[in-house]
Amino acid sequence: MWICLFTKRVDRQNVMTKRKLETCFSPALYEPAEYGNSIVVIIDILRASSAICTAFANGASEIIPVAEVSEAQVYKSKGYLVAAERDGYVLDFADFGNSPFNFTRDKVEGRTIVYSTTNGTGIINLASSAYMTVIGSFLNIGALSKWLLNKERDVLLFCAGWKNRFNLEDTICAGAIAERLFGSSLYSTICDSTLAAMDLWSLAKPDLRGYIEKVAQRTRLGDKGLDDCIDFCITADYTEKIPVIKNGVLVDISS
Amino acid sequence: MWICLFTKRVDRQNVMTKRKLETCFSPALYEPAEYGNSIVVIIDILRASSAICTAFANGASEIIPVAEVSEAQVYKSKGYLVAAERDGYVLDFADFGNSPFNFTRDKVEGRTIVYSTTNGTGIINLASSAYMTVIGSFLNIGALSKWLLNKERDVLLFCAGWKNRFNLEDTICAGAIAERLFGSSLYSTICDSTLAAMDLWSLAKPDLRGYIEKVAQRTRLGDKGLDDCIDFCITADYTEKIPVIKNGVLVDISS
Repeated sequence: MWICLFTKRVDRQNVMTKRKLETCFSPALYEPAEYGNSIVVIIDILRASSAICTAFANGASEIIPVAEVSEAQVYKSKGYLVAAERDGYVLDFADFGNSPFNFTRDKVEGRTIVYSTTNGTGIINLASSAYMTVIGSFLNIGALSKWLLNKERDVLLFCAGWKNRFNLEDTICAGAIAERLFGSSLYSTICDSTLAAMDLWSLAKPDLRGYIEKVAQRTRLGDKGLDDCIDFCITADYTEKIPVIKNGVLVDISS
Repeated sequence: MWICLFTKRVDRQNVMTKRKLETCFSPALYEPAEYGNSIVVIIDILRASSAICTAFANGASEIIPVAEVSEAQVYKSKGYLVAAERDGYVLDFADFGNSPFNFTRDKVEGRTIVYSTTNGTGIINLASSAYMTVIGSFLNIGALSKWLLNKERDVLLFCAGWKNRFNLEDTICAGAIAERLFGSSLYSTICDSTLAAMDLWSLAKPDLRGYIEKVAQRTRLGDKGLDDCIDFCITADYTEKIPVIKNGVLVDISS
C-alpha cells in the first residue's frame, strides 16, 4: 500500500516536471492564451508545411506568410515572388501554387517568397503569439524532433486540418513526431488528442502510403489532378531545415 | 481502362446515393447549418449520455435539458427533480449529479427530471436545429444502431468532448456506432473524423476496459472519486431506450 501511494506520488511529480506535449486538431480548437510559453509546431502536410520545408531545402532565404489574397497581390505588384493558392488552385496573379514541386532550386534559391494558402498561412498567423512557431512535416521530422528535444519547452502539435475540420494526414504526422519525442522520456501528456494521434500513427506506420489512400484530402487532391506530390510529402527526412517564424517571417534556423 | 472508369463512376454514384455518415469531435467544430436534414447522435459517455440512457431504462418519463445553472435552479424552486453538476460535482441545490448510478428506479420512475451538466446539455441545445437529436452511448448502442438503420437519413455522430477539446472515450463510442452502421452498406463517408473514430475503436475494442484507462477523463473522474461508473458506462446494450429531443424535451421513443 505504501509502495503504491509512493509510486503514484512520483508519477504525478513526473507529470508536473516533464515538458507538456499536446496536440490540437483544428484552428477552431486552438486557444492562443494557453501556448504563450510553448513551441507550436504547424503541421499541414498536404501541402503547405511540406512546401515550406522544400522551399528552404532548395535554398529559399525567407518566406513571408500572408493570410489574405489581397496582401499577396500587393506583394506581387512590388516585384516579389508569390506562391498563392485557394482550394489547391494557383491564383492567376501568382508565380506558382503550393505543390512542393513548384519550389525548385532554380526558382527559389536566395529568394524571398510571399506565400498564401487556403489553410497554412492563416494558421501561422493564428499561432504568432506562441513562444516560438515552427513548421513540421514528414520531410523534416528527424531534424525537427531533435531540435525540439534540445529545447526546454512545452510543445503543441498544431494540425491545420481542412476548413477547420479534423484531418487524418496531419494527425498521423503529429503522432509520428509525438512518438519520437516520447522516446526521450522528457515529455508527458494528459491530452487525448496526442494519445489518439499516436494510436492512429501506430496504425498508419506499417504502410503509410496505403493508409494515406483513404484520407479525404487525398481524394480532393486527386479530383483536381494535384496528387502527384503525395509520395514525396510522406517521405521522412528529406531535409534538415527548421523553418521558424521570426518577426512575422519564416526563416530556417537549422544552420 | 474502360472497366476502371466505369467502376469509378459507380463508386461515385454510390457515394451520392448512400446516406452520409459523419463525426464531429467537439462542439467548437459543429456547423448547425450542415445538419438540418440529419439525425445528430449526441455522445458524452462519461457521463451525461450514459446517465440519460440509464434514467430512461429506469422509467423516467421525460428529461428537460437545461444548459444554464440558473435555469435548473428555477425548475428546482418549482418542485422539479433536478440533476445538475459542474466539473463532476453535484450543485448544492440539486437532488443529484450525473453519475448514471444516481438515476435509480426508486428516484426517477414516472418522473420528469431537469438535467444540467458541464458539457452534455449545452450540446443538446446546440444540436436542436438538426432534423432529429438522439442520445447515444454504449448502453444503448445496439438499439440505437438498429433505429438509425431504419431511418432514411444522414447521420452525424457528435462527440461532446471536454471543454471543447477532443476526447477519446466519445470518439471510440462513435467508432463503435459507425462500425455497426457501415456493416449495413447503407452509409458512406468521406469524413476523416469518422475514419479516425473507427480506427481508434478497432484499437480499443479488444480490451475496452484497458483502453479507457488512458483517457484523460478517466483520470479527472478518478481524482474526484467519481470513476466508479466507468465499467458500467462501457457496457454494451444495457438498455433498448432511444432518448430523442421532442419540443426541447428528451423522451424515449423506443416503445
